[in-house]
Amino acid sequence: MLKYIDMIGDENMNKVKPRTLSGFVELLPQDQILFNKVKDTIRNSYEKFGFVPLDTPILEYSDVLLAKAGGETEKQIYRFNKGDTDISMRFDLTVPLAKFVAMNYGQLAFPFRRYQIGKVYRGERTQKGRFREFYQADIDIIGDEALELTADAELVSVIYATFKDLGFTDFTIKINNRKILNGLFEGLGLKDKAVDILRIIDKIEKIGEKAVIEMLLEVEVQEEKIEQILSFLKISGNNEEKILKMEKLDINSEDFLTGVKELREVVQLVNGFGVPDKNYEIDTTIARGLDYYTGTVYETVLNEHKEIGSVCSGGRYENLAEYYTNKKLPGVGISIGLSRLFYKLEEAGVIKASASTCADVMVIPMIEDISYALKIATSLRENGVNTEVNYSKKSLKAMLNYANRIKVLYVVFVGEDEVKSSTVTLKNMTTGEQETMTLQNAIDKVLTK
Amino acid sequence: MLKYIDMIGDENMNKVKPRTLSGFVELLPQDQILFNKVKDTIRNSYEKFGFVPLDTPILEYSDVLLAKAGGETEKQIYRFNKGDTDISMRFDLTVPLAKFVAMNYGQLAFPFRRYQIGKVYRGERTQKGRFREFYQADIDIIGDEALELTADAELVSVIYATFKDLGFTDFTIKINNRKILNGLFEGLGLKDKAVDILRIIDKIEKIGEKAVIEMLLEVEVQEEKIEQILSFLKISGNNEEKILKMEKLDINSEDFLTGVKELREVVQLVNGFGVPDKNYEIDTTIARGLDYYTGTVYETVLNEHKEIGSVCSGGRYENLAEYYTNKKLPGVGISIGLSRLFYKLEEAGVIKASASTCADVMVIPMIEDISYALKIATSLRENGVNTEVNYSKKSLKAMLNYANRIKVLYVVFVGEDEVKSSTVTLKNMTTGEQETMTLQNAIDKVLTK
Repeated sequence: MLKYIDMIGDENMNKVKPRTLSGFVELLPQDQILFNKVKDTIRNSYEKFGFVPLDTPILEYSDVLLAKAGGETEKQIYRFNKGDTDISMRFDLTVPLAKFVAMNYGQLAFPFRRYQIGKVYRGERTQKGRFREFYQADIDIIGDEALELTADAELVSVIYATFKDLGFTDFTIKINNRKILNGLFEGLGLKDKAVDILRIIDKIEKIGEKAVIEMLLEVEVQEEKIEQILSFLKISGNNEEKILKMEKLDINSEDFLTGVKELREVVQLVNGFGVPDKNYEIDTTIARGLDYYTGTVYETVLNEHKEIGSVCSGGRYENLAEYYTNKKLPGVGISIGLSRLFYKLEEAGVIKASASTCADVMVIPMIEDISYALKIATSLRENGVNTEVNYSKKSLKAMLNYANRIKVLYVVFVGEDEVKSSTVTLKNMTTGEQETMTLQNAIDKVLTK
Repeated sequence: MLKYIDMIGDENMNKVKPRTLSGFVELLPQDQILFNKVKDTIRNSYEKFGFVPLDTPILEYSDVLLAKAGGETEKQIYRFNKGDTDISMRFDLTVPLAKFVAMNYGQLAFPFRRYQIGKVYRGERTQKGRFREFYQADIDIIGDEALELTADAELVSVIYATFKDLGFTDFTIKINNRKILNGLFEGLGLKDKAVDILRIIDKIEKIGEKAVIEMLLEVEVQEEKIEQILSFLKISGNNEEKILKMEKLDINSEDFLTGVKELREVVQLVNGFGVPDKNYEIDTTIARGLDYYTGTVYETVLNEHKEIGSVCSGGRYENLAEYYTNKKLPGVGISIGLSRLFYKLEEAGVIKASASTCADVMVIPMIEDISYALKIATSLRENGVNTEVNYSKKSLKAMLNYANRIKVLYVVFVGEDEVKSSTVTLKNMTTGEQETMTLQNAIDKVLTK
């Protein structure tokens, strides 16, 4: 609680206008309850697979946090001095993980499987659905020296289980391998243009084939090579057919062959992990960023809401913490942009706040002495029913109004009759039904709602 | 995940030393799991009473956040400019609540009952057990214009339920009323010295009576008045006796009488809320800060670990948001300094990390084809068992070593025999017992651990 406050009580003093920084989310309780449900579901799903939690500080030494950041990242960072210390706010959960693993290498068991759900900060120009403070929900599997390809497949099963738990069925996890793309460019003699080309083809879903061709011509890719790239991107069929078509392309690149081999193996393993065929597919257009990922890459699309873009992305990287340590720590990770996902799902009407209270039941005492009502409330809580007692002594109408406003599901009336007969009167606030019964019956009714 | 990263892979490049800011906590997984358990327990307890969650931003406009802060608070704040914006990090959860309620007054139902568990930031000089980034777990009940005294009593029952849920039995919630102390000083003609005197007597537990007398003499309180103050502080007996003794003191102050009346009522109500006698008592020495609280004040002491100090404190305040709005919003709140509590409890050996993994079970496939093992893992998860699959293809010894290191409770072996007979072999890692059984039996065994 607050300390050191000056006692100023002048009623006419100037008020400060209460406001929240732009790009910073602050939800009303009904939305917050819903958001927490989504967050809890993701956490539970991650824990089901045995991932352990990490909760790193939001502030870090700037030189540690920005050890491998480049121009654009640095511009977006919240960075300041406190005393002599140059401090930055974390902009993702991956760099703090790298720091943590490098610092605590000797105390960790590898593969180190951690999840972290927390806020990150980016001082981007704000726009609708883009936040400066937002939650990410990450998991990563870090190997010591090496990490088997099975981990890449397991993460697909984690994405699948998580979105299933969130209530989705019609979604597709798109899988690719960065070695394939890199190898393709190498084979076509376009290695020096790879970054440009990746950036352009990454947009093909958004801007269409024609615009991509124009942009590729602009960066001086020859027409015949553009054709080869496009025919690669258009490879179709089921996963097995896509792999076979890639193998037949006869690209002169070891990377390409390794990438196809890895992709084949990951896809076969994903099948073993029990992910239904309809929920994953090879997508040769997925690139994910420019230079970070070195193997498997993922994106996840809700098929009925493709406009949201990828709701869960990630991939395999060669070396997590090379800026801090000589240990080789390959890993694979995924990240859900939780705040953005929530915002988009609510905007699309996919999720709706149904209850605006944490209480299942509001106990309303109808008599002066509230001790029986309080005992009822304690029993309800002990039986797992979240319970609020309305001890406001307002009119019945006012108390029911309040119950309606906070959208409580049941009201329990406790009056003289109930005290005498050791019963309660339970009112279902949705149906309006009202019935006097034993407390145990009321508990059963509420719990089987 | 990371974007915009420059591709630098030079093995001989200079490494940045990975380190964490001093005063910032970063727990190893086994401690983090334990910390999360404590945090979840508090959250569940708060929700049982129907409090709704709030999650305000960590950054706020400085003029909003510091509207009522004074000298000491301002010095401790993390404050910086981003572009033209003067930004500060929250130093508690009360000011953001005030801002939120003032901003959203029309959309809230009163009494507004919210909880918030989150990190706050104070740039204090670091010392053992004091943090610059730490969790607070707050609840507040905010009334519109008025708030019944029952709320003050309800919070005592919330503190009681929460610490009981945390596994404590021997703790005392100490209750006082600030009007009594203020009235006492008024009655003694010491109103202008009240702040000094409160600061001094607040230390009586720590520094003893003699030192308190000396300090009171220093601020020029007459000896006979010191005697009266001390005899007031030493009022003893059970709660009823203490109230009677106070009433008999015949202090000439309306505030004093109101305070005693309120205290009597709160204590009676607390009894009605079912809090056992042994877990709460009137303590006339509790003052809590200098100017914020205006009625009931609380502190909570673990009797076997008094050295920790108060683990949950709070009280009644007159007006939550007067710096932002003309609405009168009286409230009552409590706060648990979660990070400090956790640190002190671990230091005192009260809580110990028992498991260092979120997984209850590790499935170890003994054959090349892991598909049966993966199916077993999925079934375990569907039955509420957190399960990790060890697909590392290392030696059995290495896999069991890893299982031991992450302190998994059970290992499930899946080999040829198990596949053939549709069974699993369950090994209890604590007792070493090992038995082949149906999956359902294994699930039952693990869940009844």
